Amino acid sequence: MRKIVRVNMRSSEVSEEYASEELRRICGRYFIAHILNSEVDPVCEPLGRKNKLILAQGWFSDLNLSTTGKISIGGKSPLTGGIKESNTGGFFGKRLSRLGIKAVIIEEKPVDIPATFVLYISGDEIQLINSADLQGLNVSESIKILREKFGTNIGILCIGPAGEKLMHAAGIACPDDKDIQIRYAARGGLGALMGSKGLKAVVVAANKSIQPEIANPILLKETIKEITYLLSSDPKSKNRKLYGTLDILEVANQVGIMPTRNFSQGSFENISEMTGPSFSARVAERGGIGRSGTPCVPGCTIQCSNVLANKGGKGKIVASLQYESMVLLGPNLGIGNVDSIGEINNLCNEIGVDTIETGAALGVAMEAGIADFGDSRAASDMIKQIGEGTYLGRILGNGAKFTGQAFGISHVPIVKSQAMPAYDPRALKGNGVLYATSTMGADHTSGNAFETIKTNDPLGKENQVFNSRQLQIRAAILDTMGVCIFIRPAFVRNPDLLVRLFKAKFDWNITYPEIRQLGAKILDMERQFNENAGVSERFYRIPEFMREEPLPPNNTVFDISQQELETIWDVPIKNDFF
Amino acid sequence: MRKIVRVNMRSSEVSEEYASEELRRICGRYFIAHILNSEVDPVCEPLGRKNKLILAQGWFSDLNLSTTGKISIGGKSPLTGGIKESNTGGFFGKRLSRLGIKAVIIEEKPVDIPATFVLYISGDEIQLINSADLQGLNVSESIKILREKFGTNIGILCIGPAGEKLMHAAGIACPDDKDIQIRYAARGGLGALMGSKGLKAVVVAANKSIQPEIANPILLKETIKEITYLLSSDPKSKNRKLYGTLDILEVANQVGIMPTRNFSQGSFENISEMTGPSFSARVAERGGIGRSGTPCVPGCTIQCSNVLANKGGKGKIVASLQYESMVLLGPNLGIGNVDSIGEINNLCNEIGVDTIETGAALGVAMEAGIADFGDSRAASDMIKQIGEGTYLGRILGNGAKFTGQAFGISHVPIVKSQAMPAYDPRALKGNGVLYATSTMGADHTSGNAFETIKTNDPLGKENQVFNSRQLQIRAAILDTMGVCIFIRPAFVRNPDLLVRLFKAKFDWNITYPEIRQLGAKILDMERQFNENAGVSERFYRIPEFMREEPLPPNNTVFDISQQELETIWDVPIKNDFF
Repeated sequence: MRKIVRVNMRSSEVSEEYASEELRRICGRYFIAHILNSEVDPVCEPLGRKNKLILAQGWFSDLNLSTTGKISIGGKSPLTGGIKESNTGGFFGKRLSRLGIKAVIIEEKPVDIPATFVLYISGDEIQLINSADLQGLNVSESIKILREKFGTNIGILCIGPAGEKLMHAAGIACPDDKDIQIRYAARGGLGALMGSKGLKAVVVAANKSIQPEIANPILLKETIKEITYLLSSDPKSKNRKLYGTLDILEVANQVGIMPTRNFSQGSFENISEMTGPSFSARVAERGGIGRSGTPCVPGCTIQCSNVLANKGGKGKIVASLQYESMVLLGPNLGIGNVDSIGEINNLCNEIGVDTIETGAALGVAMEAGIADFGDSRAASDMIKQIGEGTYLGRILGNGAKFTGQAFGISHVPIVKSQAMPAYDPRALKGNGVLYATSTMGADHTSGNAFETIKTNDPLGKENQVFNSRQLQIRAAILDTMGVCIFIRPAFVRNPDLLVRLFKAKFDWNITYPEIRQLGAKILDMERQFNENAGVSERFYRIPEFMREEPLPPNNTVFDISQQELETIWDVPIKNDFF
Repeated sequence: MRKIVRVNMRSSEVSEEYASEELRRICGRYFIAHILNSEVDPVCEPLGRKNKLILAQGWFSDLNLSTTGKISIGGKSPLTGGIKESNTGGFFGKRLSRLGIKAVIIEEKPVDIPATFVLYISGDEIQLINSADLQGLNVSESIKILREKFGTNIGILCIGPAGEKLMHAAGIACPDDKDIQIRYAARGGLGALMGSKGLKAVVVAANKSIQPEIANPILLKETIKEITYLLSSDPKSKNRKLYGTLDILEVANQVGIMPTRNFSQGSFENISEMTGPSFSARVAERGGIGRSGTPCVPGCTIQCSNVLANKGGKGKIVASLQYESMVLLGPNLGIGNVDSIGEINNLCNEIGVDTIETGAALGVAMEAGIADFGDSRAASDMIKQIGEGTYLGRILGNGAKFTGQAFGISHVPIVKSQAMPAYDPRALKGNGVLYATSTMGADHTSGNAFETIKTNDPLGKENQVFNSRQLQIRAAILDTMGVCIFIRPAFVRNPDLLVRLFKAKFDWNITYPEIRQLGAKILDMERQFNENAGVSERFYRIPEFMREEPLPPNNTVFDISQQELETIWDVPIKNDFF
């Protein structure tokens, strides 16, 4: 993949360039940081013409390797004001890689707003198609029309009405091939960035298949084989297939880190329907189109996604229902009924908003008395209002911080204007370190400390800064590889496999410590952009209420000092960590 | 005035301290910068317990000098996130000075929110009084009850429902003694800061009269006499008494700097009712309680305020109707009917919102299609909704930026999250320099370049940066003196009078160039706070549309480069400028 496509939304001009060997090695999250630092005014208006929406393949996106196929999407975030990379599963990335396309850079914006363009990419042509018929449509309605227009054998990125309305909680949807699973590049308001470009969808028709450039095919084949074996034989992989990300829910609740009723408690009294085993039992019982253990990207052996069918089994309630969404839209709103949570989640998917940001916004609204905690109908209605663009919907659709400001609520679980995922930093202090210091604001995917809870007291302060540094570096590497974190067990068991991947694909003689250094370099580039944009982590804090109000049941506060947090950049890089 | 009162809103504790000679010389805007830099965490949440609301007297507030009596109010702004000083006329400051009180610092916040406290200050006692009966009341209703409770001989600061609801456009009202004129410390969302402290009003009963400390009473008397003479004999003063700030409206319209229909034009076609002469004729014609040429602070000889009576003459429509409010609530909304504008203005005063921020927010909402430009009834209704706290009201009441984000509008006339006053920077480029570089964001009071239009082409780039530097320094001095800018002619004609004031009051041998240096030092202190708070002017820009879309009728854009703007801190200080 060397082709870089640039699309000018003002002139409708499309141009192509080919990456040098050096640029070829700059991929995914790393590529986004590279383009933002070299081409985008850090102080530009995020929804103005100077910002760019960047789609970037990972280092190994074009390989037949489990969990690859996630595409990195980025730009200057409308939500945080800083750099944002958000990656998504679905069937778009893999198809784009078949055309040898390394990246797509969307520039400028149409003069006439609102605009509803589809960017159509095939092996023969790349063009912008004015598609007013898609205007205002929900995600599944849009996908249906796109398949009618462009055939079924396509990959799709698409925004819903929230993105068109430039709401800051809007994400970018990416369906699977059957339009059952809707995955999301959810965070940072990138759906609004796409909407600001007048772009409703990107469609890729992989009608050609360009062979990946591989330096040493034999080495590659062997390496992938070993990774696949290690992955499939890992006990974690088994649980992930059975229960998906819900596997952690029961422990999270037990440890007391699970945000409940607008982050006022760390445990929810009513989790019986939402644990991994009970959720999977429900899926199995429903039968029909429902299933556990489905892949979100083609060829993944982990297959952690699920489809929750409705009671007749013929239709879906939601696919996939993940831990973060379950908690933010469930316990965080005082809701314990899984079908209701699934419906709310699906509404978010249709309207095109991040479930984390939106769940947090609704929690804040419930604290403000707009609806009662536990009222799932009111929650559904609020999501619908986001899609309709009512005044309340326009408040909620702009996220938790915005909602807090509208209603004068100070209990707002955000850092850098972005809502926290489903780990309260008072009880999982490592994630407090992460939220406070990450270039991405409150975002678990940039270095989730949940995996440390067995080896390091989550309520204690010890090692949290050190660990977070290691986790953040690893996240930067994973997000540049184009893989999912669930590939991790293979590299934990044999770190040399990663080194061999670089050697086999790029003839890149990089050592494991050098890969870690590269991860740190990517973070530095991102910090540089944020520094120039005025959203350095120096200016953002864990919310004051989390340092002052103890979180039941552990009754702890977030107590890692700002001074200690700021030492994170001097923490030594652990070279054997994955 | 040496007494500094501290009120802890959490413990209800009140304490007093006495300023040293050194601290005695740190007043008004300078005092606010001093306290913020020494006591307030710059990264704190503006509406959290760590922020402080500071009331500070000017250097000469306790003197019998024309235009003195304005009180500086400040803190970390909820609107801009940076330092804010906003000062207001009215009868509060002078009364507070009679008690020898130099400053009041409101700290912490009540545990139980919402709270509705009145801080009562007399010569005998200072106490917090829980006054739930005031909750949710408009400004004039609140004042009425306060006078019933505390007698008529009091000075009042008060917030309306917008401040109680923590809306970021909320200001702090300060009535005259007859409750006809309502003046405002309007900008920066300080009403929300006061609301966050659970403070509905501050009442001062000047039942004692502490003599001002004066080093040389004879010199002072002579100096004041000369200032008064120069002021009253200045032709500008005459026009200000006749027409108030509306005196500039016709010229502003002619030059094409007057924001019209959400800053899409620089001239309004329908100004016949709103020019100084025609407005004053209307006031005279109505008779009754209406009048031009009234003072906003006791003893002012300029008397630039007005009272617009209703048609019977028995009630008021609004007092005072100023240039900024007239334009932002009139032409900026496409409204030319002065009675309607007055009513809208009065609604803002009652609900407790800044007319500039609110007018700009309504302009953005009209651009979004929420109402038609020119529809004064819809405008009134929108302001009422702010007071009621409807969903739309909560959007508008949080200001122009917030409204723009809610409705996905990019034409938002703000810098540093604060709405621009009634001078479009594309046609009065000196104010573009001001908005972009001021520590206060878009705020004309921190160095309005309007006065330069006769001597320096407002459409040209020449001298704008140089001039703005001089004007900003002067504004910092004026805001520390506790006077109004309209005292200026006296010092222009005889700068030595200012030097003599310092000598006479403080025995302070400060030269005129040293006073200018002190003004620059105050700006530096403010910049330091903003730098530490993450809202350095480096990170804020004149909105992109103003650099790209020409403003009729001159069809100019704002074209002073960012590079040139950033030279402002190296501009030499002009030592003979006032």
